[in-house]
Amino acid sequence: MFLEKIKSEGLAHLSYIVGDQGKAAVIDPRRDCQVYIDVAEQQGARITHIFETHRNEDYVVGSMELASLTGARIFHGKALPFKYGTGVSEGETFELGSVRLKILETPGHTYESISIVLADTSFSEDPLGVFTGDVLFIGDVGRTDFFPGKEEETSGLLHDSIFKKLLPLGDHVHLYPSHGAGSVCGMGIAAREFSTIGYERKHNPILQLTNRSHFIQHKVKEHHYRPPYFKLMETYNLEGAPPLGSLKTPPPHNAHQFSQKMDEGMIVLDVRSAEAFAGAYVPGSLAIPLEMVPAFAGYFLNAQQDMGLIVEHQSQVKKAFTYLSRIGHDKISAYLASGMVEWVTKGRKYEQIPSIHVDEVVQRITHKENFTLLDVRSINEFRAGHLPGALHIYVGELEENLEKVPRDRIVTTFCGSGQRAIIAASILKKQGFERVENCLGSMAACAALGCPILY
Amino acid sequence: MFLEKIKSEGLAHLSYIVGDQGKAAVIDPRRDCQVYIDVAEQQGARITHIFETHRNEDYVVGSMELASLTGARIFHGKALPFKYGTGVSEGETFELGSVRLKILETPGHTYESISIVLADTSFSEDPLGVFTGDVLFIGDVGRTDFFPGKEEETSGLLHDSIFKKLLPLGDHVHLYPSHGAGSVCGMGIAAREFSTIGYERKHNPILQLTNRSHFIQHKVKEHHYRPPYFKLMETYNLEGAPPLGSLKTPPPHNAHQFSQKMDEGMIVLDVRSAEAFAGAYVPGSLAIPLEMVPAFAGYFLNAQQDMGLIVEHQSQVKKAFTYLSRIGHDKISAYLASGMVEWVTKGRKYEQIPSIHVDEVVQRITHKENFTLLDVRSINEFRAGHLPGALHIYVGELEENLEKVPRDRIVTTFCGSGQRAIIAASILKKQGFERVENCLGSMAACAALGCPILY
Amino acid sequence: MFLEKIKSEGLAHLSYIVGDQGKAAVIDPRRDCQVYIDVAEQQGARITHIFETHRNEDYVVGSMELASLTGARIFHGKALPFKYGTGVSEGETFELGSVRLKILETPGHTYESISIVLADTSFSEDPLGVFTGDVLFIGDVGRTDFFPGKEEETSGLLHDSIFKKLLPLGDHVHLYPSHGAGSVCGMGIAAREFSTIGYERKHNPILQLTNRSHFIQHKVKEHHYRPPYFKLMETYNLEGAPPLGSLKTPPPHNAHQFSQKMDEGMIVLDVRSAEAFAGAYVPGSLAIPLEMVPAFAGYFLNAQQDMGLIVEHQSQVKKAFTYLSRIGHDKISAYLASGMVEWVTKGRKYEQIPSIHVDEVVQRITHKENFTLLDVRSINEFRAGHLPGALHIYVGELEENLEKVPRDRIVTTFCGSGQRAIIAASILKKQGFERVENCLGSMAACAALGCPILY
Amino acid sequence: MFLEKIKSEGLAHLSYIVGDQGKAAVIDPRRDCQVYIDVAEQQGARITHIFETHRNEDYVVGSMELASLTGARIFHGKALPFKYGTGVSEGETFELGSVRLKILETPGHTYESISIVLADTSFSEDPLGVFTGDVLFIGDVGRTDFFPGKEEETSGLLHDSIFKKLLPLGDHVHLYPSHGAGSVCGMGIAAREFSTIGYERKHNPILQLTNRSHFIQHKVKEHHYRPPYFKLMETYNLEGAPPLGSLKTPPPHNAHQFSQKMDEGMIVLDVRSAEAFAGAYVPGSLAIPLEMVPAFAGYFLNAQQDMGLIVEHQSQVKKAFTYLSRIGHDKISAYLASGMVEWVTKGRKYEQIPSIHVDEVVQRITHKENFTLLDVRSINEFRAGHLPGALHIYVGELEENLEKVPRDRIVTTFCGSGQRAIIAASILKKQGFERVENCLGSMAACAALGCPILY
Repeated sequence: MFLEKIKSEGLAHLSYIVGDQGKAAVIDPRRDCQVYIDVAEQQGARITHIFETHRNEDYVVGSMELASLTGARIFHGKALPFKYGTGVSEGETFELGSVRLKILETPGHTYESISIVLADTSFSEDPLGVFTGDVLFIGDVGRTDFFPGKEEETSGLLHDSIFKKLLPLGDHVHLYPSHGAGSVCGMGIAAREFSTIGYERKHNPILQLTNRSHFIQHKVKEHHYRPPYFKLMETYNLEGAPPLGSLKTPPPHNAHQFSQKMDEGMIVLDVRSAEAFAGAYVPGSLAIPLEMVPAFAGYFLNAQQDMGLIVEHQSQVKKAFTYLSRIGHDKISAYLASGMVEWVTKGRKYEQIPSIHVDEVVQRITHKENFTLLDVRSINEFRAGHLPGALHIYVGELEENLEKVPRDRIVTTFCGSGQRAIIAASILKKQGFERVENCLGSMAACAALGCPILY
Repeated sequence: MFLEKIKSEGLAHLSYIVGDQGKAAVIDPRRDCQVYIDVAEQQGARITHIFETHRNEDYVVGSMELASLTGARIFHGKALPFKYGTGVSEGETFELGSVRLKILETPGHTYESISIVLADTSFSEDPLGVFTGDVLFIGDVGRTDFFPGKEEETSGLLHDSIFKKLLPLGDHVHLYPSHGAGSVCGMGIAAREFSTIGYERKHNPILQLTNRSHFIQHKVKEHHYRPPYFKLMETYNLEGAPPLGSLKTPPPHNAHQFSQKMDEGMIVLDVRSAEAFAGAYVPGSLAIPLEMVPAFAGYFLNAQQDMGLIVEHQSQVKKAFTYLSRIGHDKISAYLASGMVEWVTKGRKYEQIPSIHVDEVVQRITHKENFTLLDVRSINEFRAGHLPGALHIYVGELEENLEKVPRDRIVTTFCGSGQRAIIAASILKKQGFERVENCLGSMAACAALGCPILY
Repeated sequence: MFLEKIKSEGLAHLSYIVGDQGKAAVIDPRRDCQVYIDVAEQQGARITHIFETHRNEDYVVGSMELASLTGARIFHGKALPFKYGTGVSEGETFELGSVRLKILETPGHTYESISIVLADTSFSEDPLGVFTGDVLFIGDVGRTDFFPGKEEETSGLLHDSIFKKLLPLGDHVHLYPSHGAGSVCGMGIAAREFSTIGYERKHNPILQLTNRSHFIQHKVKEHHYRPPYFKLMETYNLEGAPPLGSLKTPPPHNAHQFSQKMDEGMIVLDVRSAEAFAGAYVPGSLAIPLEMVPAFAGYFLNAQQDMGLIVEHQSQVKKAFTYLSRIGHDKISAYLASGMVEWVTKGRKYEQIPSIHVDEVVQRITHKENFTLLDVRSINEFRAGHLPGALHIYVGELEENLEKVPRDRIVTTFCGSGQRAIIAASILKKQGFERVENCLGSMAACAALGCPILY
Repeated sequence: MFLEKIKSEGLAHLSYIVGDQGKAAVIDPRRDCQVYIDVAEQQGARITHIFETHRNEDYVVGSMELASLTGARIFHGKALPFKYGTGVSEGETFELGSVRLKILETPGHTYESISIVLADTSFSEDPLGVFTGDVLFIGDVGRTDFFPGKEEETSGLLHDSIFKKLLPLGDHVHLYPSHGAGSVCGMGIAAREFSTIGYERKHNPILQLTNRSHFIQHKVKEHHYRPPYFKLMETYNLEGAPPLGSLKTPPPHNAHQFSQKMDEGMIVLDVRSAEAFAGAYVPGSLAIPLEMVPAFAGYFLNAQQDMGLIVEHQSQVKKAFTYLSRIGHDKISAYLASGMVEWVTKGRKYEQIPSIHVDEVVQRITHKENFTLLDVRSINEFRAGHLPGALHIYVGELEENLEKVPRDRIVTTFCGSGQRAIIAASILKKQGFERVENCLGSMAACAALGCPILY
């Protein structure tokens, strides 16, 4: 028996391939799915089964893509009318050599959520592991806010799924969730990516809320963001996404060609580091440092709109392309060849964003200087501690709340480290704010230096 | 916290790197240790600690090599006077960010064996996993036959280490042993490479022997092979092995140059498949198909003797070289450029080994034909079922038992699949046996076809 | 200015990418054309032009594929009514930065053949290199036998193209032909892959025939083989081949599944080495060692027929798949997982082919033993020297000439080294010949040992 | 026969491996020489000969390293008392299969310079190519300023070597020089990397100076820079450099550890892009964008001094390490893990460098504003056109000429594109200049926009 975890960085999405004796099953595949076929072949196996633990909201699921490449069958919960695949019910089992996969219906995160129990029948029929999708994470549980007005119901369902179905599998059972730390699908997920039912039972903070009402109460009070691209994902993952095979990575463009496309409406995504963007950027471009693209691009980019990329190095094009395609952005038609060097050596206009150290921010606050400290972290982070006088607008909601930001004074963007803050700074500049600075280091630097924090 | 398992195929050796916040520890590194540095760097970490769970017998431990490349400190059990590193005692702890490693003394396999308990202190001080070395495997336990005359004592120690120290850590604890299936260090190790203390407690066959005397009785009766190269490993791993850095992969030789070296005493190892060897081989060469080199070369090859390789493809040279260096064979000075094509197109003599189907073997047995069916599997496999009339000599002991094989009739070598049998066939040919055949398929084919088996 | 040669092994096909300042042109691309895009991107360039020197016969040209991926325009000679692309005439020029490409009409190999003269206009308009397609090779010239009855005409045209158009470009001009040594498109092509017009003028043996009639006389007498798949290539390369993008590498099959497909008509291609095939093979399979697939598969395989592969190692599947797709074989639906080990351990029948040393062949000839020595080399090689009494049938024509091979005695297949001979041996076995042997080493071994050769 | 060119980017160093029938020779190997062994093995060859065309000044030659790995013999001109290898004389020949290498003594660049004539004896003894070292380049010839006071003599020798020895080889001969465009060893080398003797005879601008005195006059007037590290190279390449095998890539350091090393005297090299450096940098660090390291680091860095790296991405560490080792900088002991993110999130001080567009520079000039426009290009570039009022100091000589730069006003660094200017800016900041700006785009932007240029 082999089992491998395939991680999609940025999305913090975890998928799995498990198999034996020439057959393999994939759980929650991503869209760029050659990786599963490669693993299978190294194991001398063919992918015959694909399981979706639920209709995903945060990425394009690759079931259809993988099925078309392998001929595998797709299975998912039957409580949702998927336009493809086969519905499965509690207790159904699938055998692949010594691998036995058994369905548990575990609603709560969504109504059709299933978990899949793994046994190694060469040893025992006893559970060995469980694929829990977005029901139970390492250090957290799934969010239950997707059905407005039904939060109590779904939270109760989640409680029962966990306490009545998953924990009873036994302390010795490996836990295989669909997300790791950094996912928008869970706030408190551990940085560690391995755990057992027993370890979670004992140490997952939410699972200490054994009382059903307390659990529901806690869940209902949680605050989660919901980026606009979720809508598209929901459609794609219900009906099947367009095939990826036909997509082409964009060709290089020189400054003239790139600029022409901008004039024709192409939006520009700059995936360089915060420092590089700050040092020189193409006016009108949106900054999202490469590794943040999967988690943040969905807040700002319209999948239907033509997009051009600015990169530090040509090798980033393929990565940005893959990251964007995973969240359904398929219209990338250009990248700026040789990056900013091409731009500046052609005499094109560029701009800079001043960086400012937290020491200076603190001084300004102390001296009551007239400026806006714009904290763009999540509301949960903000509540857990912020600088005095900070204005809070979550980075993902900034474009809709620009009127709250005064235009007559300096705006200093601020976040956990300066990364989300550069996104915010680029949005403000794009929207005509003139005096924008980024606090590189931000809250992390405050913590290291011991700034005065309000709670 | 990150944790990665690094597997050395063939040896079925498992090593681990675990770390957090810029620091990493490696448990039981192999000799070609760049892989640990690469993983560490991807995690932004430096390797600061190296642990040896015990003095290994079956491969050259890479502690000294890795320490010289990283400056990390080496730790091992104090019950053996290692010439390098630092002894550690029960209860000592090491912190690397949220990683806490705690020493358990778990003698039995060897006297100085330690296990290392992992906790994630960002969640709890409760154990999360345990590195058990050769004490507890998945589906098996460590062998206790290394100290002749002390088998009862060591088996008792092993029992206590497992039942009094490891199992009490809790069902929820991940198990990280140093070997997987196929190792000479354990016969019944599962093909699966992940488990928990709880799963083993319930389903590991040996752990069902909870009664101490039954456990000891069972262990004392076990039969294990001990290849001659273990001696060298024991010396290397006590005193420190020669540095690997200075080793060079061998250069290509044409047939003339290769042949000249053979005349000067170079032994020839042919790592091609059993079929390719059977189809044409250089007289006097030893066949060990590439993936079997780590597990079998140590029975036949003297580490001090000059060796030349014959490969199917040039890419196998590096792999063979690495495999051999892991078990201390560092004197490889040539490979035959372009493989057998070079040899045969220069008009050099070559030989073939007829392959024979099990159907024909069975017919011969039925008709009481005069031939020797030489079964070279382990004694345990032989006892679990063999063909009528088979002569048993373990492949690893064949060279010392040639006088038991009649030279006046056909010898048909036989094993589990025909792979070990080709090794045996090459040895017989090298030793002047004239009529040697290999039963490709061997016991596996018998099982598939339903031959008459004796037990 | 950058210029890279892309070689397709086996076909000995040479294609080129040349460019400057963000633009690139490709000459005679192959079907799997990502390599050109990769080179272009490393140079920060987009492929804007594709040139075909002529309608190729020996491989699927990748123009349409590459154009669909890049948007580049396709150009070729206008003397043939291609169903795609644009015809070009003598003297037309194309500029890509300092790269100037100028068309020369150079008929002879085919009527629409063009050569493309390269200049570096940053230095001079003087020619720097010339892409000659199949008109002029290094050490040879193009074949002129494609238009039966017109050999004298085409040979004359070729003479004029070379002597009146190419040589006058100047001794200093680099020569970039479309084929290297081993191609079916030229017999005497040098093993070296770089030359100049001047070096060829002085040292290419055919170019010493400066007299037009002598040249024609020489060309008309040449003998070339023409594998059946050329027909399909001619159609594909006139009309455009099916897109490659939709092709999938085949999945692994176990012995049972593979065998079932064989029963349903799947033909089996074994790409392992001659020795491995000789050692054990699946009855009914055709042997073509992997690196010979591009040059020889087209003689034996019907592109419309379902095919299964037997490989030494899984990594060969992709390579075999690519090799076959380059010559239009797209229907590969399976490979035998784990290769022959899978087959023999399931108890399936396998066969062997005895190998025989040239010494023994010579002895048999000397003692006038009753056997057939079947020399399957080309007629040119045969005429240049062969063993006494050998029967000559070219390997590519063996299937159509089986009645010439006596079935009542041993057949010993023989070629240059034993590689083409194993193909022949596999064909004979497939066709029911019972006593077939392969002379590993063949003519090369004869040469090394000094056998008696007839001329 | 095979011949491959191995290029070392940045140094624009070209080396070659040529061979046949199992043997290979390398011409002017670099220090990290596994690449030659890899090419040789792919060709089934062993490296048996190493040639140095002359004692190199601009990189550490890898002859000793390669010889120690392969056992090959080293050959060079005898006019210099090398402490290793064997001197060769005019007319000596070496045969490797059909490869014939023949020595020509071609002094001028240095006294012991040799060229090596290649013939393919399977075709003819006529020259096919020539390895010219630093004697003749594509579009330029070697510099002759290394022996102060002897410029006329060496220039005359160079003339004779080229006109009396190289050109007579014939127009058809391939030219294989040791440097391409961008090398400090020749100013006017073409961007193209392939040429012939005939093409150079006709189109190389310097070779149009057929008159010996005119040629000498031209050469003597040339101006070349000579970075300080040349001294070390000369010693290394006369006596043999320390072995590379023992070097280790540096481990990651967190901000605290890195900072501590800086306090202990470690110098800091920042290899990120000009924009990223401008956006935020560690005070006191030297900026050299990665691809400029080979060509510029030798001006500023003392090979004996401990060095730490700041990178955009961890993958740059190995590349920077290799680049530095090629010019003899072996003491790199740290890199900043996670780059600037680590630094700023720990609250460490960082600085920025304002970028300024050429439009603004021109306006300032027009309005006679009080600032220093510091043009750090080479004197040749400066003379070929510069902005009015610019102060010229070559970037490589800036540290020695700081007193020429006024400290009481803004300094705007300026070069061809803004890359060398960021080096200069970082030096000025390091030396306490307070108001330093970098003109991103610089002369290239001027050219694109049409600024007023003085000549």
